[in-house]
Amino acid sequence: MSHEKSYSIKGDQKLFKIAKAAAKLFNQEGYLGTNMDHISAAAKMSKGGIYHYFSSKDEILYFILSNYMDVILEGLEKELKEIEDSASRIRFIISRHIGLYTQNLPEAKTLLHEASCLPKRHFKVIAEKERKYFQIVSEALLKLFQNRIPKDKLTVITFLLFGMCNWIYSWYDPKGSVPPDELSTLIYEIFMGSVGRLDDNNPER
Amino acid sequence: MSHEKSYSIKGDQKLFKIAKAAAKLFNQEGYLGTNMDHISAAAKMSKGGIYHYFSSKDEILYFILSNYMDVILEGLEKELKEIEDSASRIRFIISRHIGLYTQNLPEAKTLLHEASCLPKRHFKVIAEKERKYFQIVSEALLKLFQNRIPKDKLTVITFLLFGMCNWIYSWYDPKGSVPPDELSTLIYEIFMGSVGRLDDNNPER
Repeated sequence: MSHEKSYSIKGDQKLFKIAKAAAKLFNQEGYLGTNMDHISAAAKMSKGGIYHYFSSKDEILYFILSNYMDVILEGLEKELKEIEDSASRIRFIISRHIGLYTQNLPEAKTLLHEASCLPKRHFKVIAEKERKYFQIVSEALLKLFQNRIPKDKLTVITFLLFGMCNWIYSWYDPKGSVPPDELSTLIYEIFMGSVGRLDDNNPER
Repeated sequence: MSHEKSYSIKGDQKLFKIAKAAAKLFNQEGYLGTNMDHISAAAKMSKGGIYHYFSSKDEILYFILSNYMDVILEGLEKELKEIEDSASRIRFIISRHIGLYTQNLPEAKTLLHEASCLPKRHFKVIAEKERKYFQIVSEALLKLFQNRIPKDKLTVITFLLFGMCNWIYSWYDPKGSVPPDELSTLIYEIFMGSVGRLDDNNPER
C-alpha cells in the first residue's frame, strides 16, 4: 500500500492505534531499536494487519510526525486573528503549545527525537511544517515588538521561547505538582517580563 | 584495559583525540549507528590502537560525557562564591554555560542526545553530575529570589532557564550573525526581565 493511499483512509481508528503504539515504542526503545514485530505486539495486531495500513516503519514514523504537525498547525492562524492584543496572542500560543504537547506526549517526543530518522523527502515535508509553525510564532512576536526589532534578534528570541516550551520533554511530568496551565503561565511571565527590556519603545508592556 | 585504568592516563592526547572523533560521529550517525571501525577511521588510528585506550564503544561514550560534565562542574562553585550580587551570578552562569557549549559542541550534543545509551551504572554517574550542576544553578536562583519562592516553582524556573540554554543545540550556529556573547545577553535579559514579576518582593531587580 502506498504512503499516499494510507493517508486517504481518514478516520480509521486502526491507523491511529498503530501510530500511538509505535510512538510509545519509539520513545522507549528509540526508532532504530524498534521493529515491525515490536509494533505488532504493542498494537495487538498481526504484522499482516499492520502492513495493510503501513508498508514500512518509515511510513509509520512519517504518519505520526505529519499528523502531529497538522494538529499543531490546524486553525492556528485563524485563532490568532481573532485575538486582539499581541500579548494575549503570545499567551495563547504558549498555552496551546504546552497543551498539545502534554496531550500528545509520545508524538511530541518522537518529533523532537526521531525526525532525523525519516527518509529525506519525508523529512523535508515535516521540516516545512515546522518552519511554517515557527513563522507564525515569529510573526506574532514581531507584532508584540511592533515591528521594531532586527530580524536576527527576532529569530533568536523565537527560538528561545521554543526552547523553554520544548525542553520540557526532558523533565516535565504533566501529572506532577505543576499542572500544564501553571507551567504555561510561568513561561509566559518569564517571557513577557522581559519584553520591555528587549524593546524599550514598546508601550504594550 | 579497564575503564578505571584508562582514566589514570592523564594528559594523554590520544585519549582525547579518539573521544573527539567519536563524539563527532555520534552527532552525525547517532551512537547506535557508529561502530569501532568508524571511530578508528575518523581518529586515524588502528582499531588495536583504540582498544589500547578503550575496551568498548560504551567506554568512549562514558569518557566523553564524564569528561564534559567535569569541565562544566570544575571550579564553578568557587567562581560563584567570588561574585557578590546574585544577578551577576546568574549572568555568569548563563554565559559560562553557553561558552562551554559552543566550545565543546560535539560533546555537548552527545550529552543531550546519547546519554541514555550508557549502561545503567555509568548513566547513574553522569546523571549524578547533572544533578549536581542543576543544584548549583538552582541555589544561585534561590538567592536571586532571596529564598522567597516555593521549591516546585524554583525547580520549574531552573528547568526553563536550562531550556533556553540547551535548546540551542537544535538551531544555534556559533558562527552565525549572533555570536555566543550576544546570545548569552539575550537569554540573561529575557530571564532577568521577568524576575520582578515572579517575585514582587525582590528589590534586586
